[in-house]
Amino acid sequence: MINGWLSIGNPFSAEIMASCGYDSITVDMQHGAIGYESMLGMLQAMRASGVAPMVRVPWLEPGAIMKVLDGGAWGVICPMVNSRADAERLVSYVRYPPHGNRSFGPTRANFAIGADYATVADDEVLCFAMIETAEAMSNLEEIVRTPGLDGVYVGPADLTLGLTGRQYRTGFDREEPEMLHAIQHIKTVAHAAGIRMGLHNGSADYAAKALTWGCDLVTVSNDVRLLTQAAQQSVADIRRLISSELSFDAEESSNGRECGASY
Amino acid sequence: MINGWLSIGNPFSAEIMASCGYDSITVDMQHGAIGYESMLGMLQAMRASGVAPMVRVPWLEPGAIMKVLDGGAWGVICPMVNSRADAERLVSYVRYPPHGNRSFGPTRANFAIGADYATVADDEVLCFAMIETAEAMSNLEEIVRTPGLDGVYVGPADLTLGLTGRQYRTGFDREEPEMLHAIQHIKTVAHAAGIRMGLHNGSADYAAKALTWGCDLVTVSNDVRLLTQAAQQSVADIRRLISSELSFDAEESSNGRECGASY
Amino acid sequence: MINGWLSIGNPFSAEIMASCGYDSITVDMQHGAIGYESMLGMLQAMRASGVAPMVRVPWLEPGAIMKVLDGGAWGVICPMVNSRADAERLVSYVRYPPHGNRSFGPTRANFAIGADYATVADDEVLCFAMIETAEAMSNLEEIVRTPGLDGVYVGPADLTLGLTGRQYRTGFDREEPEMLHAIQHIKTVAHAAGIRMGLHNGSADYAAKALTWGCDLVTVSNDVRLLTQAAQQSVADIRRLISSELSFDAEESSNGRECGASY
Amino acid sequence: MINGWLSIGNPFSAEIMASCGYDSITVDMQHGAIGYESMLGMLQAMRASGVAPMVRVPWLEPGAIMKVLDGGAWGVICPMVNSRADAERLVSYVRYPPHGNRSFGPTRANFAIGADYATVADDEVLCFAMIETAEAMSNLEEIVRTPGLDGVYVGPADLTLGLTGRQYRTGFDREEPEMLHAIQHIKTVAHAAGIRMGLHNGSADYAAKALTWGCDLVTVSNDVRLLTQAAQQSVADIRRLISSELSFDAEESSNGRECGASY
Amino acid sequence: MINGWLSIGNPFSAEIMASCGYDSITVDMQHGAIGYESMLGMLQAMRASGVAPMVRVPWLEPGAIMKVLDGGAWGVICPMVNSRADAERLVSYVRYPPHGNRSFGPTRANFAIGADYATVADDEVLCFAMIETAEAMSNLEEIVRTPGLDGVYVGPADLTLGLTGRQYRTGFDREEPEMLHAIQHIKTVAHAAGIRMGLHNGSADYAAKALTWGCDLVTVSNDVRLLTQAAQQSVADIRRLISSELSFDAEESSNGRECGASY
Amino acid sequence: MINGWLSIGNPFSAEIMASCGYDSITVDMQHGAIGYESMLGMLQAMRASGVAPMVRVPWLEPGAIMKVLDGGAWGVICPMVNSRADAERLVSYVRYPPHGNRSFGPTRANFAIGADYATVADDEVLCFAMIETAEAMSNLEEIVRTPGLDGVYVGPADLTLGLTGRQYRTGFDREEPEMLHAIQHIKTVAHAAGIRMGLHNGSADYAAKALTWGCDLVTVSNDVRLLTQAAQQSVADIRRLISSELSFDAEESSNGRECGASY
Repeated sequence: MINGWLSIGNPFSAEIMASCGYDSITVDMQHGAIGYESMLGMLQAMRASGVAPMVRVPWLEPGAIMKVLDGGAWGVICPMVNSRADAERLVSYVRYPPHGNRSFGPTRANFAIGADYATVADDEVLCFAMIETAEAMSNLEEIVRTPGLDGVYVGPADLTLGLTGRQYRTGFDREEPEMLHAIQHIKTVAHAAGIRMGLHNGSADYAAKALTWGCDLVTVSNDVRLLTQAAQQSVADIRRLISSELSFDAEESSNGRECGASY
Repeated sequence: MINGWLSIGNPFSAEIMASCGYDSITVDMQHGAIGYESMLGMLQAMRASGVAPMVRVPWLEPGAIMKVLDGGAWGVICPMVNSRADAERLVSYVRYPPHGNRSFGPTRANFAIGADYATVADDEVLCFAMIETAEAMSNLEEIVRTPGLDGVYVGPADLTLGLTGRQYRTGFDREEPEMLHAIQHIKTVAHAAGIRMGLHNGSADYAAKALTWGCDLVTVSNDVRLLTQAAQQSVADIRRLISSELSFDAEESSNGRECGASY
Repeated sequence: MINGWLSIGNPFSAEIMASCGYDSITVDMQHGAIGYESMLGMLQAMRASGVAPMVRVPWLEPGAIMKVLDGGAWGVICPMVNSRADAERLVSYVRYPPHGNRSFGPTRANFAIGADYATVADDEVLCFAMIETAEAMSNLEEIVRTPGLDGVYVGPADLTLGLTGRQYRTGFDREEPEMLHAIQHIKTVAHAAGIRMGLHNGSADYAAKALTWGCDLVTVSNDVRLLTQAAQQSVADIRRLISSELSFDAEESSNGRECGASY
Repeated sequence: MINGWLSIGNPFSAEIMASCGYDSITVDMQHGAIGYESMLGMLQAMRASGVAPMVRVPWLEPGAIMKVLDGGAWGVICPMVNSRADAERLVSYVRYPPHGNRSFGPTRANFAIGADYATVADDEVLCFAMIETAEAMSNLEEIVRTPGLDGVYVGPADLTLGLTGRQYRTGFDREEPEMLHAIQHIKTVAHAAGIRMGLHNGSADYAAKALTWGCDLVTVSNDVRLLTQAAQQSVADIRRLISSELSFDAEESSNGRECGASY
Repeated sequence: MINGWLSIGNPFSAEIMASCGYDSITVDMQHGAIGYESMLGMLQAMRASGVAPMVRVPWLEPGAIMKVLDGGAWGVICPMVNSRADAERLVSYVRYPPHGNRSFGPTRANFAIGADYATVADDEVLCFAMIETAEAMSNLEEIVRTPGLDGVYVGPADLTLGLTGRQYRTGFDREEPEMLHAIQHIKTVAHAAGIRMGLHNGSADYAAKALTWGCDLVTVSNDVRLLTQAAQQSVADIRRLISSELSFDAEESSNGRECGASY
Repeated sequence: MINGWLSIGNPFSAEIMASCGYDSITVDMQHGAIGYESMLGMLQAMRASGVAPMVRVPWLEPGAIMKVLDGGAWGVICPMVNSRADAERLVSYVRYPPHGNRSFGPTRANFAIGADYATVADDEVLCFAMIETAEAMSNLEEIVRTPGLDGVYVGPADLTLGLTGRQYRTGFDREEPEMLHAIQHIKTVAHAAGIRMGLHNGSADYAAKALTWGCDLVTVSNDVRLLTQAAQQSVADIRRLISSELSFDAEESSNGRECGASY
């Protein structure tokens, strides 16, 4: 499954992203510049696309997690799940009794996902725990076997910080042997427990590689990076083209008609 | 001058674009999905960048034009200026008496542009008229000589529709001889009158070419296109990479652990 | 065609209304408490429903009309079209050259309606002119024959004010003979010209009657009225039930445990 | 006390509901599609009505609870209060020292409720704990005796899930004997402790019945249900009326002038 | 009548201002940083105060004017009314037929002002025309006698620009003899026609003087100026106090514990 | 360091305050009427000013604290830090591993603070713990020595409630000997531990005094108080001026032209 990632809090950019071919898209309420009101509009704007909308919640907090599900998220990714107890709490916030303690009131989910939401929610709603600390790694076997957990999701930036301190650059797409080993290990342990494994990636190359490793869900970049890189590239292209082309046209370009010189 | 273009109504995407190296950035209130409240936030978010913020207004309307200037826009681009009378009305909305009829009250401009705004506004604020119809072409000589007008701006999609009906595809980066001629003609006439000429472009290649022609301000693509193309490319890359790589790994990828199959 | 009507500026109430069985829904930017930003979110939230989204624009203004179409509205209803010249202006704002003067840039429509928007827009976008003044009535034959107009839409409150001054109550669902005659006359003239006729109604009864008259599009009530009436009825029901039931239970209800007495 | 309930995050729908005759209205930040910014606008829009504004908070969290009180809520309803310790924490978030640990800073409450807020808040602000789990039922006697608690509030959907698992449908207006018994028991225990008892209801009939049982505060339906039911009924009415009336008018209705057939 | 003035687009600052003792408060949609959505929230937030809410509209445009009235404004102040024809158009947008052409649909006004709005609106809604150009001065006698106009309102900044060009500073509280004469003249002519005269002022001193001249409505400063001046004064006070006090405490203040030195 | 304080959730009022000469400005998400979306816009609008933007978070919650930092806050002030354990949790939310457990993803901080954010954040981001309860006072020595804590911040309103119950008025600028002693004691203990001490003040006089005591950061009033006091003063001034001046002009002022008498 190829997952898109949203960090800009806007329904139209979400609607655009939802048209681009992803299987699922995650609204990042943890690190993204996105509050509840924007998240809600983004879920609404993506609904027509048929892409599965997920939300990364800010933290392992029951109020926030239940609220995004009631708002129509089809799944949650929860950061910093470090122990079996954390994972059990997460599941308890996502599943209705007797499988958990989620409070009943799927106000928008009834409209966005369907009138039979009460019946199907516990089967359909995805619940991913992020593995991104040394503590989580040491509790991994117990975490993945938490009943009701659908998968684990790896944040390579935090996992690298957590496992190796600051000896390496921050960020995604790790190539250090111990990080590659850690990622593969998580995948193996998750699959052995019969749950899925997802990975956050910065590039299509790395995401494709992750799929060949057997990762089930790969996130590829996000709206902020895609927009930044595309705009920077566009400006760089034109500046490069000008400097080469204008070497033949220096006179015309220096005829004093430069615009906005006073800014 | 390299101009960025915003059609997503969000301060953070504007802030991102303003960090990417453009000389100026235009908030498109005509065709963009942007209302006044979003526009205001976008101007605020771009202020720190030092990029010159401009606004394309929805139409030649005094209320809307003065309001974006009071909100802190450094210039306006006005669509569908088709005659000398239109151009004079435009200037009258942008300049204070005795040069025009702009009403005084630069509420946010006083903060965003400076406490001396009242003194410098008529000199600093840019006023561009869009040339994009057959009528405008036939009145071009008169339009460009309107006192107080800083420049003309060409929208190739509308100009093509206006000059040639629907015999060609819609859009930017025209290659038809009559359209190339029209664009060059506008540039020549504008420059002869001592004002600037700007052109809307869909690609860095075309924008660079336009600069070599002597265009003074070139817009290159916009946030919607940049994001869409980058996201589509990213998804296409990974799907292509998977299909080639997975030919060696078919077994692993078909082990029933596909995620979100029910969506 | 049964049309819903939105006067509350909220995407979720729009999403709710869009789930209730209407064929089309109109966002009322004229009299509704709805600005551009809310309208945009409402169109986004209704997209998944498949209901045809229309917008009543505030006035016959080119900027506002083109902006809602670029934002993804499938049709516009324009108030106060009083003459052939008004109707021609309206059409010119809704159709691309050579059929009109709409400026090209369907930023969200490209996503919401489809990538072939440029090709199909002039055929698909609905353009309704409101007939609601004495002047419009006297110009009716000319108005309905305006090329490019899809239909007329009758606002009975304004039409009654316009035709009869204030001798009758304001509002919809007119029963006065001259108003019934006027409405039927508009229908007949519109149909003779081969265009549609729509009517604003306050009740399902009247709307059904209008359909039997041959009206093509009937609006039934709106979100504000539906919510107000339902809430008032709910409170009235419980107060009535209490007063009857509590006659048997006066002691229990007066045991001093009333809540919020200080409010 | 008859309580209205808001799940749509919009100030105007709140203002409408506040005009409909309720004694109090609760903004549901737990299950409603409502974030902080919308909640604030809703409290502002309801202020003129004189209706007592309450907020159901997302969870037993100090930051969220104090923030809605500072924003001008006259009371809070807190979900999932399952033990005496939970109830004591709730009270401590709602009362100022020495009765609790609420932090002082009633920024909007000073305007909305009055300049003497600091003096009267601990007496006036209502604090309701929701009883909706098996655990809460078993701790009920201790919970209701928590000093500073004004009442308990029953969410029948969660309570039914909590007490009976999934053997019954989800929702309000329970008729199962054990649920009726549980509700009556909560009322009796609450009243014995001298505090109020509130009940969430889906219909005026059930709410009226609850008042005759001695419930002090009854919520009747909510904005989402009222609007949905009213709109569905309106569409159903017109479709039924058409199908019966049009049996006599089949020709007129099939004259090819159907509108929006292409949607 | 003492009028407050809002240029910050926020419901809470409006609510604050509405608590400060003004008789009426005007939301400035012309020069203020305020769009429709903010304006609506501001009217809602001020409703409880009982202060008369007015709106200065961006321009003499029917759509915008009718929309603010439907949104619940009790009066409009319209800029740049320069002729009898302008004034008649203004009145026609504010009054229902047969006194004008206002379209009927007071969606929020029905709630904010009352259910009898349709009956009382033409009598109660205030309609002020701004006199702020040389042209308006020369047409003054005709303007003030426009039936349905309640008053004229003077913007001294624009009037000074309009009458004297740029020989004087911009702004309010004019002391130039010709400006004093102009203001008094407007008052005299308005009163002779039996309508009110309002004046925009920058200080309480000048506003008080204007009242003694017989002005009926005086605006005193606005939220932006009040906040700016108060904050600047507060910072200036503390910096002055520090510099005097710290001359005795130089050692303590230079002990290297300065905060935020890196900013 | 002179700190401004924002309790109105609006980017423009933030931009205004940021122009007034403060060294830093704190957005109050605890008691201010400010949600995440407003806070984000306020940080964006203040960025150009160069003032250090800080945020007081609602509570000691990891999700909320990390989210404001990722959004570009340069520092956090956390309420109700009552023990060494609390302080350690606070630091762990603000610092990246190995100094804490902050999750990596500085989405907007990368743009607002700089591309080297990952490298400099732990050194630059300010972390203040509020001392405002009796419990905190008794644990003060341990709190101030928490590694990674930059300072303590005193909320005098809460501290007075916490230390003395309700024997004194609520609010800032305490003059009671025990409160003066407590404040000075906190300063001494903080400085002894090599960290900063900040104080919330209601007036420039008290803030200046606090600086002479050696406080490192003083907050002076806030936007709500500044605006309220300035507006109240302005209205009081004009009413006083009128009543004195009008004693000479009683006739003119009572000539029946009073405006808005019906409100």
